[in-house]
Amino acid sequence: MIQIISGTNRVDSVSKILSQTYQGILSSLGHESNIIDLNDLPEDFAYSALYNNAGKNQDFNIFRETMLNAEKFVFIVPEYNGSFPGVLKTFIDGLQFPDTFKNKKAALVGLSSGIQGAGLALSHLTDIFNYCGMHILAQKPKLMHIEKNMKDKKELGDFYTSLLQEQAEMFIAF
Amino acid sequence: MIQIISGTNRVDSVSKILSQTYQGILSSLGHESNIIDLNDLPEDFAYSALYNNAGKNQDFNIFRETMLNAEKFVFIVPEYNGSFPGVLKTFIDGLQFPDTFKNKKAALVGLSSGIQGAGLALSHLTDIFNYCGMHILAQKPKLMHIEKNMKDKKELGDFYTSLLQEQAEMFIAF
Amino acid sequence: MIQIISGTNRVDSVSKILSQTYQGILSSLGHESNIIDLNDLPEDFAYSALYNNAGKNQDFNIFRETMLNAEKFVFIVPEYNGSFPGVLKTFIDGLQFPDTFKNKKAALVGLSSGIQGAGLALSHLTDIFNYCGMHILAQKPKLMHIEKNMKDKKELGDFYTSLLQEQAEMFIAF
Amino acid sequence: MIQIISGTNRVDSVSKILSQTYQGILSSLGHESNIIDLNDLPEDFAYSALYNNAGKNQDFNIFRETMLNAEKFVFIVPEYNGSFPGVLKTFIDGLQFPDTFKNKKAALVGLSSGIQGAGLALSHLTDIFNYCGMHILAQKPKLMHIEKNMKDKKELGDFYTSLLQEQAEMFIAF
Repeated sequence: MIQIISGTNRVDSVSKILSQTYQGILSSLGHESNIIDLNDLPEDFAYSALYNNAGKNQDFNIFRETMLNAEKFVFIVPEYNGSFPGVLKTFIDGLQFPDTFKNKKAALVGLSSGIQGAGLALSHLTDIFNYCGMHILAQKPKLMHIEKNMKDKKELGDFYTSLLQEQAEMFIAF
Repeated sequence: MIQIISGTNRVDSVSKILSQTYQGILSSLGHESNIIDLNDLPEDFAYSALYNNAGKNQDFNIFRETMLNAEKFVFIVPEYNGSFPGVLKTFIDGLQFPDTFKNKKAALVGLSSGIQGAGLALSHLTDIFNYCGMHILAQKPKLMHIEKNMKDKKELGDFYTSLLQEQAEMFIAF
Repeated sequence: MIQIISGTNRVDSVSKILSQTYQGILSSLGHESNIIDLNDLPEDFAYSALYNNAGKNQDFNIFRETMLNAEKFVFIVPEYNGSFPGVLKTFIDGLQFPDTFKNKKAALVGLSSGIQGAGLALSHLTDIFNYCGMHILAQKPKLMHIEKNMKDKKELGDFYTSLLQEQAEMFIAF
Repeated sequence: MIQIISGTNRVDSVSKILSQTYQGILSSLGHESNIIDLNDLPEDFAYSALYNNAGKNQDFNIFRETMLNAEKFVFIVPEYNGSFPGVLKTFIDGLQFPDTFKNKKAALVGLSSGIQGAGLALSHLTDIFNYCGMHILAQKPKLMHIEKNMKDKKELGDFYTSLLQEQAEMFIAF
């Protein structure tokens, strides 16, 4: 079971749509997956589930367990202020260290309205996951001008879908 | 008025102690400062004060205004999972863009229990602030093994204090 | 006298053309500058002018002195293999440490044939120059698809020229 | 056959000693390896073997072929000016793109006289190799204060040797 993390808590995010696209691709390749939407986390988890409160928030613990038990992850990462959303790092900060990520594998996808395609965000995340002992697939699509590459704001366009398809096949073999 | 941001919401953090140390140094150099402790933010601000809710949380707006009106910042940055705390980036994500940081100046201080001294954290933050248009002082002390360099867990040791003193003098001239 | 470093040793490089464009902009703003073309360095300088041979190559020493005596630098940085050219770092490795860069100031310009605009290259260089004690202007134009934005392969197009003009004005005030 | 790259052209480098240590570890684990010392490259290769001259320098082509035909690499990376030596990137710039590294695997080892252990250098290199399509082992030992951890300046101490042993075992399974 591959965990797909939709990397923002924004309501009705493009990241959520891409997570569903990715799930469809994995399904077509014969792999089950589950989407974790950061918008479903307890709203005060940064204060109620970290540091001295680690493990004490039962609603957050469900996510904590799901992440701990997975072996492979796909992170859909929108660009905010030149990097990834703070809430994504806070989510990581709330997980069990080091067992959640150590010797596991992840694929990263970046997206942005502007021209960077979250390139620096993916570099920063690679540093963090490598620190946690998780191997990162080298191929990290950077989907710039994402809105211009959506159909009716609801569906990812063909070219970007083909990039995700290509990455997904590599990730399954990784 | 220099704003000093204590970069974690951990209760009784070492970052808070270092913020007070830095405030004392700035005061001795004739400069007023104010400490912003991320532990004082509304606990659900990641959900109630960002994106579509930007500007709608009155308790958060006080911090938003304070940051918007400042010209110089000192960030005290503890290392978590190989970078800085997610809550610090979420705080940045909640501020007014681009006026909060554009053409302003900041000094960064890293600290860690381990040996990295938050080196990668400071690199990531520099990327983010440069993206926001803020200039970063080149000198960024990396205070590794921070607990071993505290007196009675309450006071920063002399060597690290001298590094902050040296940085503060440079920052005032920056 | 501002030193403009054309950051590759490729013959007839686009970086060289952009260096000349930048020199013209600085001149129009009333500032003198000098272009250092890495293609003019002694071809074996990586072996004859570094480490135990530091300072021993008279042809390289001319560049070493010029860099040591400057206060402000503009680096024109093409993207190679996802970062900047190795020869640019080798050039830096051959300069006097720490006096060449300490407490000085630089502006960085990135360019690429592809879509990244040398974004990671500029992040890496910022890390390096900050380590050397040099402050970097936050604004770093990333000129992607550079060939498509040249006239007759010989002259930088208007939009990108305006980005350099804007940066140059900020750099003079920095 | 694993290729071990001693990442500097400094004569009698510590990186060379560590490369030999790593070769011994791999041998004890039943794996053959070959050491590439950047000090053995043609001294003018940055000018005679890149860009328009790619493939034209026969002495460099030997290294080019060796790298092209390998599947796994270990890079021993000393810290220079806050990153890795320029000559290492120039070497990479001279290799065949993208076949040399695409879908291959590498392990990185950092070393420094100071306290950083080449942490930023390894982050920069990871960016570069990921761009080239090569997967990087998450575990990257950062050997700070390297001289203090050598016996008679000639042999790596026991603790750091054990870190390399641990990495080598992971790398073989990667």
